[in-house]
Amino acid sequence: MKTYKGYLIDLDGTMYRGTEPIQEAVEFVKKLKDRGIPYLFVTNNSSKTQEQVAAHLQNFDVPAEPDQVFTTSLATASVISREMPGASAYVIGGDGIRQALGDKGITIKDEDPDYVIVGLDREITYEKLALGCLAVRNGAKFISTNGDIAIPTERGLLPGNGSLTSIITVSTQTEPLFIGKPEAVIMEQALNVLGLPKEDVVMVGDNYDTDIKAGFNTGMDTLMVHTGVSPKSLLLEKEQQPTYSIDSLSEWEF
Amino acid sequence: MKTYKGYLIDLDGTMYRGTEPIQEAVEFVKKLKDRGIPYLFVTNNSSKTQEQVAAHLQNFDVPAEPDQVFTTSLATASVISREMPGASAYVIGGDGIRQALGDKGITIKDEDPDYVIVGLDREITYEKLALGCLAVRNGAKFISTNGDIAIPTERGLLPGNGSLTSIITVSTQTEPLFIGKPEAVIMEQALNVLGLPKEDVVMVGDNYDTDIKAGFNTGMDTLMVHTGVSPKSLLLEKEQQPTYSIDSLSEWEF
Repeated sequence: MKTYKGYLIDLDGTMYRGTEPIQEAVEFVKKLKDRGIPYLFVTNNSSKTQEQVAAHLQNFDVPAEPDQVFTTSLATASVISREMPGASAYVIGGDGIRQALGDKGITIKDEDPDYVIVGLDREITYEKLALGCLAVRNGAKFISTNGDIAIPTERGLLPGNGSLTSIITVSTQTEPLFIGKPEAVIMEQALNVLGLPKEDVVMVGDNYDTDIKAGFNTGMDTLMVHTGVSPKSLLLEKEQQPTYSIDSLSEWEF
Repeated sequence: MKTYKGYLIDLDGTMYRGTEPIQEAVEFVKKLKDRGIPYLFVTNNSSKTQEQVAAHLQNFDVPAEPDQVFTTSLATASVISREMPGASAYVIGGDGIRQALGDKGITIKDEDPDYVIVGLDREITYEKLALGCLAVRNGAKFISTNGDIAIPTERGLLPGNGSLTSIITVSTQTEPLFIGKPEAVIMEQALNVLGLPKEDVVMVGDNYDTDIKAGFNTGMDTLMVHTGVSPKSLLLEKEQQPTYSIDSLSEWEF
């Protein structure tokens, strides 16, 4: 087994399931910390800030500082600030995306924005969607923090950001730029933050369609752990296989 | 020019534009009434009742009784009551769809419904969408009153019912049954109401993608009038042409 100099780690289904920590994953991260191996949590959650995500992890006894969290909101803000410094954006979404954009000097406004950004918004309204559609039809660039079609909850699978995004896609007949996993955009930026070349880093996650494909799309090694949405049997029907596949992170040897 | 025994007539872009009546269309309908030729207004609007639509037309001096209005809500309720008498439905949408379902004895409920119905709802919330997704994943039949991607307004093109519907389509990966124009479902029911065979009836409308295609899909003659969304030039790029195409309904000879 190859020795990796750094780890990118998914959250939901890998570190915890809803409100329950996955104990083997907590121990896994503690070992990384003890050995001084750099790691970064990479999440498609756009609504929470780095501080909120780190606090959630610390609550499960996971060693996690805010700067060890990389969200699709941070990736989105970086993409925009590189592409158009001083840009403005109309935003559908929560605290995380608003704070990330503000930190990069991006102005948030409702009319004539340079960008329309859609992140998961549980306070979605017709008026918010209308403003998004009008701006995209008016020429604003269209970005979605991630294409997740559903969110696992205690109640079942609820609408994810990819499905909310589709309203504007269908109505304006304009495809967005997706930032989150499985896109390479978020991964390349996470590697930059980690400061390591992709050959030295492994992507750890439970979801074949987001985490593992994100590794494929970035040309990275992948470690799939079957504690979340994708059972081992799913791999039988897949052409492209993760580099490693294990039932629990307690099996991993550093 | 063939003599038709009945007329199916679109509303927005044909009878009026937003709050402005199209005077030539008003005169056209008055002539139909004077000559005793049966006509029915066929609309993809699911949120208004027959009474509300008729009152709107009467306000423009158009001779229109409630039973001369056929909405996609009425068509939806008929489809369900034939397919499963005594069915229950979870509904996203306004007064029109709720009243139409109630009139056919369909129970409206949030959990474990037989059907999920999506009509345009300007009070859309994440919770409404969540309930729709959960029910469809739980096996409820999925119906959308129409697939219109956008609604023309003074502010520009706002999200239509087809784009709202896409949230549930994308999240559950389940395609709905669409009822409204350009589907034949609503047209065949409208012909039933009119009590005439399709060979004796012409479909009148301004929108190539809904009204005229509805005629094609039903095997009816079509009269396209360029007072709304589809200019004459659009026809140059279309393989299938309407039976007639005129700039104003004042040109029509009975």
